[in-house]
Amino acid sequence: VTPALADSDLLARIPTATDVADAARLLDGVAVRTPLLRAPLLEHSGRRVFLKCEIFQHTGSFKFRGAYNCLARIPQSRRAGGVVAYSSGNHAQGVAAAAKLLGLLAVVVMPRDAPALKRERTAAHGAEVVLYDRERESREEIAGRIARERSATLVPPYDHPHVIAGQGTVGIEICGQLEKLAPDIVLVPASGGGLLAGIALAVKERHPSARLVAVEPAGFDDHARSFVSGRRERNAKLSGSICDSLLAPMPGELTFEITRRLVNEAVSVSDDEVRSAVGFAFRELKLVLEPGGAVALAALLAGKVDAGGKTVAVVLSGGNADPVTFGSAIGA
Amino acid sequence: VTPALADSDLLARIPTATDVADAARLLDGVAVRTPLLRAPLLEHSGRRVFLKCEIFQHTGSFKFRGAYNCLARIPQSRRAGGVVAYSSGNHAQGVAAAAKLLGLLAVVVMPRDAPALKRERTAAHGAEVVLYDRERESREEIAGRIARERSATLVPPYDHPHVIAGQGTVGIEICGQLEKLAPDIVLVPASGGGLLAGIALAVKERHPSARLVAVEPAGFDDHARSFVSGRRERNAKLSGSICDSLLAPMPGELTFEITRRLVNEAVSVSDDEVRSAVGFAFRELKLVLEPGGAVALAALLAGKVDAGGKTVAVVLSGGNADPVTFGSAIGA
Repeated sequence: VTPALADSDLLARIPTATDVADAARLLDGVAVRTPLLRAPLLEHSGRRVFLKCEIFQHTGSFKFRGAYNCLARIPQSRRAGGVVAYSSGNHAQGVAAAAKLLGLLAVVVMPRDAPALKRERTAAHGAEVVLYDRERESREEIAGRIARERSATLVPPYDHPHVIAGQGTVGIEICGQLEKLAPDIVLVPASGGGLLAGIALAVKERHPSARLVAVEPAGFDDHARSFVSGRRERNAKLSGSICDSLLAPMPGELTFEITRRLVNEAVSVSDDEVRSAVGFAFRELKLVLEPGGAVALAALLAGKVDAGGKTVAVVLSGGNADPVTFGSAIGA
Repeated sequence: VTPALADSDLLARIPTATDVADAARLLDGVAVRTPLLRAPLLEHSGRRVFLKCEIFQHTGSFKFRGAYNCLARIPQSRRAGGVVAYSSGNHAQGVAAAAKLLGLLAVVVMPRDAPALKRERTAAHGAEVVLYDRERESREEIAGRIARERSATLVPPYDHPHVIAGQGTVGIEICGQLEKLAPDIVLVPASGGGLLAGIALAVKERHPSARLVAVEPAGFDDHARSFVSGRRERNAKLSGSICDSLLAPMPGELTFEITRRLVNEAVSVSDDEVRSAVGFAFRELKLVLEPGGAVALAALLAGKVDAGGKTVAVVLSGGNADPVTFGSAIGA
């Protein structure tokens, strides 16, 4: 385990593929090496489709990887203060579970409208949950205040080199699990861009010609607009999509420095396309996806990428579905 | 492919572990080698738990294996008549999909109260669906009449050596996927007993001390009672359980000759225990199970077997869940 740098230095450092490889060593035997399932039902026009099932990761989403990689590297001198995080739910659970494994106290700042299941599960991992109003309060400010008051280490949901590197281990696994096949297209859900940046680092290192595609909810297409303008663009809204886990206000600073170079394209999917993908996963794949975890599949199903003859990896990033939302998507 | 015997000889022949190995060779590259997922959330008291995910099999259940193994062995001289099968749904889909792959005509006799999804999917594979009344008509008689009229080959849902052998390939895979671990307990859903008999043949051949446990819906515990009395006992009812895929009237003749020797125990689970398992799989495992496919998991969750310190394999046999039933089980 590399000792953490002083915060200001650490937080400004753009991670590399080497950091992702370090994270993979740290996470070996701790995180689940989630299966890459072949999906014959999605294969036509000569394309091969593989689903990276991060829904089977601890806490039901990829977020455990980045959280654990970050928390495990907190130096001994700072461990007593514990950690504080802000999250709509999946990062919260990831941090809470990692903190429990590592014996750290955790406080999590969550929006009042986060799915009840995610709040309950975060608390069930032993974290203290502090609620805020997504439209009127700043979660960064609340978390910052708690960090100062308690000398706790802030664990951002995406804009942190250890978090990005941890999420990137998904990309290393995809490449390894494809064995002799090279991925032509990798479809990755994007919000703050941590998973996208990490996977891009890992995949482009191994397969420079792979096409990295960010998938965003319609109306929250900050990556698409930022890639066009060349600077970080903000979303007009902070709520109002079925994809509760993909509502970051804009790409992260560090993540965007990576994704602007390595990501080839961004596409977006409507709430209806997402519901349809959740229903397809239920009926045909027998997998439980939350809306935000289904956007990459939705993009493939809705024909947002030209995948004919290609080897496509689709990241199913989270499965913490609210029962009522899920029931409505499957026509229950 | 072994040529089929004359019907009367073939149907009286009790399959062996060698037949299961033959089926595995035939199904290689045709059936999905479904993943055996470790379930850390189910592990306590020193037990190791592995889930055999037949929900990812073609048509969403293990039934494709036996159907394909049976249909592929129909001799050329009998192919023109096609096949006829009776089934509450999963065998129907398995036969329809196998027939389509092999270029055979298929007629399927299904109960009028089978889930709409299963009827639709059977028809979608190109099979002709004939409906009957589960309480008042005999599916065997209807299927037998169609077989005579059309010179079609009858494909029974469990009491056929090729069907039993095909289902047994699940057991070969479990043993292979456990690598150096030996299964101490294998929990298998039971209805007619085809899956149970096949898996018992495969597992006991490799691990004679493994404990094979049949899991039945409460009120449909024909295997439990038959193991006690030593002869095939009939269920009092033909409907009335949430487990629509596990309502065979009694153990099969061939299957019982195998299971009476090789199965160690039978336990049963209530509809509430099954609903609870379907909900657990949704929330914690992110897997879609139909009620009948969830009984083995339900038995483990409800503590029906003493699994402390053991290596346990749990067969998740089907995922063709009706959306309304599923929604109710998850609290949508």
